[in-house]
Amino acid sequence: MDSRNDAPIGVFDSGLGGLTVAREIMRNLPDEKIVYFGDTARVPYGSKSKQTVQRYSRQIVRFLKTQEVKAIVIACNTATASATDVVEEEAEVPVIGVIDPGAKVACENTSGGRVGVIATKATIESGAYVEAIRKIRPDVSVIGKACPLLCPLVEEGWLHDRITEEVLMRYLDDLMRRDIDTLILGCTHYPLLRNTIRRLIGDEITLVNPAYETARELKALLNDRHLEAQGPVNPDDPMPYRFFVSDDARRFAEFANSILPIDVKTARLVRIDEY
Amino acid sequence: MDSRNDAPIGVFDSGLGGLTVAREIMRNLPDEKIVYFGDTARVPYGSKSKQTVQRYSRQIVRFLKTQEVKAIVIACNTATASATDVVEEEAEVPVIGVIDPGAKVACENTSGGRVGVIATKATIESGAYVEAIRKIRPDVSVIGKACPLLCPLVEEGWLHDRITEEVLMRYLDDLMRRDIDTLILGCTHYPLLRNTIRRLIGDEITLVNPAYETARELKALLNDRHLEAQGPVNPDDPMPYRFFVSDDARRFAEFANSILPIDVKTARLVRIDEY
Repeated sequence: MDSRNDAPIGVFDSGLGGLTVAREIMRNLPDEKIVYFGDTARVPYGSKSKQTVQRYSRQIVRFLKTQEVKAIVIACNTATASATDVVEEEAEVPVIGVIDPGAKVACENTSGGRVGVIATKATIESGAYVEAIRKIRPDVSVIGKACPLLCPLVEEGWLHDRITEEVLMRYLDDLMRRDIDTLILGCTHYPLLRNTIRRLIGDEITLVNPAYETARELKALLNDRHLEAQGPVNPDDPMPYRFFVSDDARRFAEFANSILPIDVKTARLVRIDEY
Repeated sequence: MDSRNDAPIGVFDSGLGGLTVAREIMRNLPDEKIVYFGDTARVPYGSKSKQTVQRYSRQIVRFLKTQEVKAIVIACNTATASATDVVEEEAEVPVIGVIDPGAKVACENTSGGRVGVIATKATIESGAYVEAIRKIRPDVSVIGKACPLLCPLVEEGWLHDRITEEVLMRYLDDLMRRDIDTLILGCTHYPLLRNTIRRLIGDEITLVNPAYETARELKALLNDRHLEAQGPVNPDDPMPYRFFVSDDARRFAEFANSILPIDVKTARLVRIDEY
């Protein structure tokens, strides 16, 4: 058995949101080990400049390499939009972001060629979804909407809340009036608001969750490169899933436990700006 | 004339909020020069751990020392709560934070001995206001309330907005039911919501704005130490007020222009993690 196949998948995010991607990987690739890094000391990325997000992403890749990962998932839309090139350059292993998988499925599913994207300011301003969709289907119109309050609302835990609903309505109203037929959840926090969003937009609009599509794409990629795990995770393996953060490991573990299907006992602290 | 008297005041914050403190210094100490640093690459501090906020504050002080400041104002409640000791140790010049001045005025003004504090999670969890008030008046009860959504709402620009009002009502309701007679705006963003807060709490409750009190305290400190500017800022001085940030200088300048009584043309970028 090739020892590379037994290596973990590296998954990183600016903080907590990427856990929705880790969750889909756990569900859909149950044999794979995961090393997760959340940059909680510098979160959020969504309001920061491209240069800064690139610098932070490069440091994280250097850390993940010390964990001997066999592939890297950029589980953060902002980092995917701003830093995929940099990550690929630094990584020396296959890299997959969350934007292309979501864009691809949106292109396959759009009935009227009008795709809405909700995301952070940085992701929208980068134009990354527009570019990814145009590359596949130049005939599709992409309508983006920055929603800077949604992450703070999710992190405050107001998931099923009248105020969150009102904020969402204000953000979504604009997209609805422009007749979108498909909506991409372009930030990894947003799947946690999926039920409320579904209720507000009705049943006619297709919802695309890039976290799920990324897990599927990762499966295909590992298969292509003959990198899949050769068997189930050893039940005696004390740590098939390892979590690292740059700040406040206790709070991270609490949030992780509310999202993941496993019990996260601890996360380890990494001085990420030294990488 | 002692050249130290002509040196600028160093003012720092995790990002934009500290501009409300800079504004009060400009209004109340018009002869003083200011060097402002906003840590926009790592904002916010309010959700981060004490250790991390201390490390960031220490780096900022090292930068401010290169600007030869004569005193340092920690224009951020979280950094004041978590890192005043560290800043004093590193600074070699007098240091003033925003918590003691606000606590002092609250103690002078409370009629019934029930003081409310709204602030970030980190400031509330630090217990810094409780400690500062108990030191002056152990008989006063302090009731703290973390309000993590207020900064994002201010930075979204929803200052006079029904949603912001609803969020505020939810946060304030708890304090009102506990019969506070004085309310401290324990985060430097909150003075921008002062009118709405005043409307919601009515006229009976005293509002304390630590930004204003800090400027007054700074004036007394400079006087005490014989460090006041010896005359008005030279009208030919091209830069009596200098602004530095760790990320996205353009956006900072836009926000600064909406708050300050002067025209901020540019902010300069500093690689703060190299200090």
